Amino acid sequence: MNFKQNLLVRFRLDRKLLGLLLVWTSNFLMQAQVITSPNKNLSLQFELTTNGVPSYQLSYKDKSVIKPSTLGIEIKDAPSFMDGFSLTDSAQSLVDDSWNPVMGEEKIIRNNYNELVVTLAQAKNNNRYIRIRFRLFNDGLGFRYEFPKQTDLNYFVIKEEHTEFKLAGDHKIFWIPGDYDTNEYAYTTSKISEIPSLMKKATIEINSQFPIKDLAVQTPSMMKTADGLYVNIHEAALINYPAMSLNIDAKTFKMSSHLTPDAVGNNGYMQTDTQTPWRTIVVSDKATEILASKMILNLNEPTKYKDVSWIKPMKFIGVWWEYFVAGKSTWAYGKENNVKLGQDFSKLTPNGKHGATNERVKEYIDFASKNNIDAVLVEGWNVGWEDWIGNWKEEVFDFVTPYPDFDVKALHAYAASKGVQIIMHHETSGSATNYERRLDQAFQFMKDNGYNAVKTGYVGQIIPRGEHHDGQWMVNHYIHVAERAADYKIMIDSHEAVRPTGLNRTYPNWIAQESARGTEFEAMGGLAPEHTTILPFTRLMGGPMDFTPGIFQTDLSYYGTGGNQRVNTTLVKQLAYYVTMYSPLQMAADIPDNYNRFPDAFQFIKDVALDWDNSYILEAEPGDYITIARKAKAKNEWFIGGITDENSRTATISFDYLPKGTQYIATIYSDGKDANWNEKPQSYTITKVIVTSKSVLKQYIAPGGGVAISIKTGTASEVKGLKKI
Amino acid sequence: MNFKQNLLVRFRLDRKLLGLLLVWTSNFLMQAQVITSPNKNLSLQFELTTNGVPSYQLSYKDKSVIKPSTLGIEIKDAPSFMDGFSLTDSAQSLVDDSWNPVMGEEKIIRNNYNELVVTLAQAKNNNRYIRIRFRLFNDGLGFRYEFPKQTDLNYFVIKEEHTEFKLAGDHKIFWIPGDYDTNEYAYTTSKISEIPSLMKKATIEINSQFPIKDLAVQTPSMMKTADGLYVNIHEAALINYPAMSLNIDAKTFKMSSHLTPDAVGNNGYMQTDTQTPWRTIVVSDKATEILASKMILNLNEPTKYKDVSWIKPMKFIGVWWEYFVAGKSTWAYGKENNVKLGQDFSKLTPNGKHGATNERVKEYIDFASKNNIDAVLVEGWNVGWEDWIGNWKEEVFDFVTPYPDFDVKALHAYAASKGVQIIMHHETSGSATNYERRLDQAFQFMKDNGYNAVKTGYVGQIIPRGEHHDGQWMVNHYIHVAERAADYKIMIDSHEAVRPTGLNRTYPNWIAQESARGTEFEAMGGLAPEHTTILPFTRLMGGPMDFTPGIFQTDLSYYGTGGNQRVNTTLVKQLAYYVTMYSPLQMAADIPDNYNRFPDAFQFIKDVALDWDNSYILEAEPGDYITIARKAKAKNEWFIGGITDENSRTATISFDYLPKGTQYIATIYSDGKDANWNEKPQSYTITKVIVTSKSVLKQYIAPGGGVAISIKTGTASEVKGLKKI
Repeated sequence: MNFKQNLLVRFRLDRKLLGLLLVWTSNFLMQAQVITSPNKNLSLQFELTTNGVPSYQLSYKDKSVIKPSTLGIEIKDAPSFMDGFSLTDSAQSLVDDSWNPVMGEEKIIRNNYNELVVTLAQAKNNNRYIRIRFRLFNDGLGFRYEFPKQTDLNYFVIKEEHTEFKLAGDHKIFWIPGDYDTNEYAYTTSKISEIPSLMKKATIEINSQFPIKDLAVQTPSMMKTADGLYVNIHEAALINYPAMSLNIDAKTFKMSSHLTPDAVGNNGYMQTDTQTPWRTIVVSDKATEILASKMILNLNEPTKYKDVSWIKPMKFIGVWWEYFVAGKSTWAYGKENNVKLGQDFSKLTPNGKHGATNERVKEYIDFASKNNIDAVLVEGWNVGWEDWIGNWKEEVFDFVTPYPDFDVKALHAYAASKGVQIIMHHETSGSATNYERRLDQAFQFMKDNGYNAVKTGYVGQIIPRGEHHDGQWMVNHYIHVAERAADYKIMIDSHEAVRPTGLNRTYPNWIAQESARGTEFEAMGGLAPEHTTILPFTRLMGGPMDFTPGIFQTDLSYYGTGGNQRVNTTLVKQLAYYVTMYSPLQMAADIPDNYNRFPDAFQFIKDVALDWDNSYILEAEPGDYITIARKAKAKNEWFIGGITDENSRTATISFDYLPKGTQYIATIYSDGKDANWNEKPQSYTITKVIVTSKSVLKQYIAPGGGVAISIKTGTASEVKGLKKI
Repeated sequence: MNFKQNLLVRFRLDRKLLGLLLVWTSNFLMQAQVITSPNKNLSLQFELTTNGVPSYQLSYKDKSVIKPSTLGIEIKDAPSFMDGFSLTDSAQSLVDDSWNPVMGEEKIIRNNYNELVVTLAQAKNNNRYIRIRFRLFNDGLGFRYEFPKQTDLNYFVIKEEHTEFKLAGDHKIFWIPGDYDTNEYAYTTSKISEIPSLMKKATIEINSQFPIKDLAVQTPSMMKTADGLYVNIHEAALINYPAMSLNIDAKTFKMSSHLTPDAVGNNGYMQTDTQTPWRTIVVSDKATEILASKMILNLNEPTKYKDVSWIKPMKFIGVWWEYFVAGKSTWAYGKENNVKLGQDFSKLTPNGKHGATNERVKEYIDFASKNNIDAVLVEGWNVGWEDWIGNWKEEVFDFVTPYPDFDVKALHAYAASKGVQIIMHHETSGSATNYERRLDQAFQFMKDNGYNAVKTGYVGQIIPRGEHHDGQWMVNHYIHVAERAADYKIMIDSHEAVRPTGLNRTYPNWIAQESARGTEFEAMGGLAPEHTTILPFTRLMGGPMDFTPGIFQTDLSYYGTGGNQRVNTTLVKQLAYYVTMYSPLQMAADIPDNYNRFPDAFQFIKDVALDWDNSYILEAEPGDYITIARKAKAKNEWFIGGITDENSRTATISFDYLPKGTQYIATIYSDGKDANWNEKPQSYTITKVIVTSKSVLKQYIAPGGGVAISIKTGTASEVKGLKKI
C-alpha cells in the first residue's frame, strides 16, 4: 500500500478572489473541520472561535480526550499568531503506506492517517498566514504549526507557544517535574489535581537541574482516565526548536505548552519555510496499544542517509558499573583536583584506583570475546576526570588524549584480534562548545583507532552558558553530533541529552539515548520497583533507551563498601529488561565476575536478540506490569520479558504469534518461589518446556521480579522428554 | 643582554613561622614597597591600607600619574580578594633582555624593567593568597593579579575586578564609548569632566552595539595632562578573561575597571594557576615615546609556535571597496532575502551584481600580478550573503560552498600561475559557534585550495546568544581560531574582534585586526581628518591594524551613485598611512581602475615595505599630526609617512637615522599647494631629491593631507641632477 488520496473536501482559494469570496467563505469555513482516524475510533474537530482563535478537540469512541483547546504562537517584537485568523484553505487527505526501519521493534511499520491542513491568514497583519497540520492515526493525533515562506514573514523569534491540551477530567498521571536540564527524576503517580501538593517532594536533587518555576511536568506525559482511557502527550521530530514541557492547571486539568528558553529568554529562532515539532497525543482504551504505537516514529522524516549498512545493533559490557559499586576503581587517574588540558598527566600522582587500565580493559575484552559480546565500553580512558564536574569549566576533555595507563593502539589491536569492538566514551561535562570545536578531531581519532560507536555524556551545566540541555541550541547540537558522526560512520548513544522524539528514524546512527533515570541510580538510592513499568509508557515513547540492565549482584553490600544499598529487582527482572526496555544497543552492565558466578542466567543475555521482526505487547499497565514478546530479526527465535512492580503477580503469556503447527523449546528464566527484590533476589529457576502457538503460560513473578523466556526450534533429541504446555 | 637579578630586598616568609613573625612583619611589611623604572623616570609605590586593601601609585619625573588607587577582585559566591590582606612576601628583580619579533616595527625589541611581586594573604580566609606583579619599564607600568595553585583555591568566578586608576587631574582624553560589542566608534576629544555631557552624542548607532550602561570608555584610553604628560591606559595579553573598559568618575577623575560580562552576568571563570591580563599605563612627556613604546608587546608571552617561517607580511588588493562605493556589485548572488545552507544556490534569481565572479576576480589577479601585489582578497565568494545580517541566525555560512559563478579550483590555478595568492574570507555574522563547528573543515578546504591567509569577520550579535564580542568566551574564541589556524599554517586578519592587546607576539599568525573605525566608514559618513592621528595612540597601541588605506578616488560622487559622500583625506595622506598605520598586512583598498589612473602615486604603494628593522617616531601629537620614518627589513630602504588633521602644517622631517656619509634618493609624494581633503584631494606632486643623515626637510602638508617619502640608494646617473637637501 502506498497511495495518497484527497478524500473529502478540499478548498483552495485564489488569493485574488479572497475579497469577493469573503462573505461566502467566512460562513462556509467558519464551520468546523472534522476528520476521523482510519478506523473511526478517533475524531478531531478544528474550528476558529469568533475572535479567529484556532481551536481543536479530540474524542475517542465518543469519549472526550481533549476538550476544545486553543492553539497559537506568541512572537517577540512582532504581531503574534494568536488570533484574528480566517480560514483561507482547508485540505484533507488519507495516507496509508509503510516503511522499514533500519533497526526496530517491527520490521515493517504501517503509516496510516487522515490529514487535515488548515491555512489561517491574519487580515490585520497583511494576510500573513500559517498552517496547522493534523494527522489522525488509529493510535492518536499529531499536529504541528507550519510557517510557509511568504513575503511578509522570513525571520521571527518565538516568545511562547500556546498550545493547550484541555483534559477531560482529573486523570491519573505518571509524571516527573518540568526541568530545563534533566530528565533523571523518579516518577510520581497521582491525580492531576494532586500535582501542586506533590511537586516539592518530587523535585529531588539532581546534578545540574533547572526545575521550571511554573507548575509543569515533562513529556512524555502518561495519563489514565477514570473510565479506562490511556492518554499520552509528547512531541515528535524535535528539530531546531526547544523541547516542550507542560504547564499544569490543576483545577481545570488544562495542560499547555512551555518551551525551554535560551540564554536570553527567547523560545525559538525561526526562519520560514519552517515548522514546530509535532505535538502528539497517543490514545487507546488498551494500555498495550500505547506501547505498540509507532505514531511518533511515523511523524518523523525518513532518513536522508544514503548508506545505512554500517548501522548495527550492539551488545556490550563496559568498564562502568564498577565505578558506581565496587569502590575499587575511578574514572580519574590522578589524586589531584585541579588539572588542565595540555599538562603532562603522566606526572600526576596516581590515585591507584584508575579503572580504564590496559590490564583491566583486556580482561573485559577477553570476557566479551568468550561470551560473544560485541563490544566493550571504556569510560575514564581519557585525561581530565580529576576535576571534570561542577566547575562550569569549558575545556575539561579533549577526547583524544588517553591516560598514561591506557594504550589506545595496543588495546584496539588486542580487541580486534579477539573480534571485539571498543566503544568510545565522550563525556562533555555539559561543555557542548568544547565538544563541537573538537568534534572533527575526536571522530577522526576514533576512525584512526577502530572505534565505530561512541557513548556521549552531558553531565553538568551547559556551555554555552545560559543555554539548557533541552533548549533549541542543544537540540540542534545533538543532531549536529549525530549528523557529523554519520559522516564518519559512527553510531551515537547519548546520555543526559534531551528526551528523544523519534529522531532515530531520521538519524538512525543515533541509536539510543539515556535521558531518564536509569540503572546508575540503582547505585545512588535505588529505583522504585515500579519505575521500569512506567518508563516504556513515558521515556521510551520517544525512542530506544540505553537503560543498562543486567545487574546480577543486586545486593551492593556484597562489595563491602558500606551501606545496604541495593538494586531493587530480582536477578530475573534484570533479564526481562532486555525485552521490555527496547534498544538496539544493550549493555550487560554488571561486572564480568558476577556473570561468571551465574553462567546459566547469563545465557539469556548472550542469547537475546537486539533487533526484531515483530513485537507483541501481551500485557501492560503503567506502574504495575508489562509483558512483551518479540521475534528476532530474520530468525525463528522469540524472546519474552515480563516484569512487575513491588507486587507479585501471575503473568498470562500467550504464544499465538508462533507459527502454527510447530513445536518450539522455551527456556524459562523465572523468579524462585522465595525470591523478592529485597530478599533472595538471586533465587531463580531455569526450565525448558515445549510451546506451540496454542500454548498459554501462567507464570508467577515475584515482588519486584520478572520472567524471561527464549524460544527456539529444537532438534528431536532436544525436544525429547520436555514437558509441553 | 639577558640576565635576571634580584636587586633590592627580598622577603619570603616560612608559613609555619607566620604566627611568630606576625608583629615584626606587620610593622616591617606595612611599609610601602617602591620600585623605579630603569631610567628612574617612573616610580611605583605599593602598600596595604590599614584595612589590608592593596593600593598603588605611580609618578613620572615627580609628577603624579596615578594617585593612590586601590586594587581588588570581587568573587561570586565566595569571599572576595578585596581587603583583609597582609603582605607575606615581596620580591624585586631587574630584567634587561631583548627579543626578535617575527614581524614588526623593530627588528630587536628591548625588554627592560624592574619588577615587584607582592604576595598577599587573607588571614580571615584561611590564608588564601594572591600575588600582584608590577613591571616598571622606562615607558610605563604593567601589573596583573595572579592566583597561584593552592589548597583552598581552585575554581572561582569573578563578579567584578576593582582596579582603580585615580588620575591626577581633569586631563584631555581621546575616547570612544564603552561598549561590549563594538570598537567602531568615532573619537571624541574632551576633558574627563566633559564625558558625561558628551556621551549620548558620542554613542552613535553602529551595527550590533551594546553600550555600557555605566559611564565608561574603552581602552586604549589616551590622555594628556595640563602639564604635558601623555598617559595611555590599556591592557596586555588578554587571554581567558573578558576585555576591560574603564568606568569614569568625571568629578574625581577616577577610572576603574569594568569587565565585559557573559550571558549570565558573570565576569570571568578562573582556575588556578592563573592570572588576569596586564593592566598597562604607558607614560611619557613626549607623545612620540607613546607611539614608540613596545611595553605591551613585552608584557605578552613569546610564541610557542616552533615554526614561524610560513608567517609573512602581505600586500593585497581585494574585491571589497566596490561593494561600498561603486554601487555596481554586491556580496550576494541572489535576489532572495531568505536562504538556507544546503539549498541549491544556483537556482536563486541572480541579482546581476554579484562581485566575486570568476571574471572580476581574474581582473584583480591580473592587476596584482602586474603590480607585484602579493594577494587578492575576495569577499562574497561563498553562499549565504542574501540574508546574512540582522537575524541572529546561527548557520549563515558554511565557509566551503562557493557561489555558482566562483570557481575555487580554477581561480586558484589561475592565481598560482600568476604568482598571486587569494586571501580567503570567513564572515561569521557573529555566529562563533557555527564557525567553530565548521573550522576544521573550513581550514582544510583552504589548504586544499591553496589559501594561506583568511580575513575573518564578526558582524552581528554574537552566538552563543548573550555573549559579547569582548567577553571571555569570545576572547578565547579568537585565540582558538588563531591557534587552530596555526595548525594549518594559516594567517588570520580578524575584523570586528575584540581590541588587540599585543597577542600578535604570542600568536604571530594573527597578523592584523580591524577592531576600530576603519576606512569602510569613509564610505558610510566619513572619518574625521583627525581620526587617523588618534588611532595610533589608541587602537594601534594593542597591535597592527588592517585599516585598509590607499583610496585614491576620495570623492565618491565619482561613481554616480548619489550623494556627495567623500573620503576625508587627500590622496597623499592615503599613501602616508602605509607608514603611519603599522601593519604587516596592508591592503591597497581602492579599485584597480583608480590605481591605473594615478600610476605615479601608486608607485609608492608598490614600493612601500611591510616589515621593518627600525622605526623612528619623528613628530606626533594625538589629534593633530604624526610623522614616522621606518627602515625596511633587511634592506637599505626607508619610508616616511606624515599626516595631519583638518589643519595644514609644515612637517619637520629629519633624516639622522640614515647611515652617515651616504647620499640617498628620496622620492617625495606631497600634497599640491591647492590640495585639501575637501577640495582637490587628488592634487599632488612627486619630486626626487638627495638626502643624507644631515638633511632636514620642512614639508607642507595640506588640510587633511599627508606626505609620503621613499628613500633608496641611487646609482650615480640616478643621483645626477637631483637637488640635495
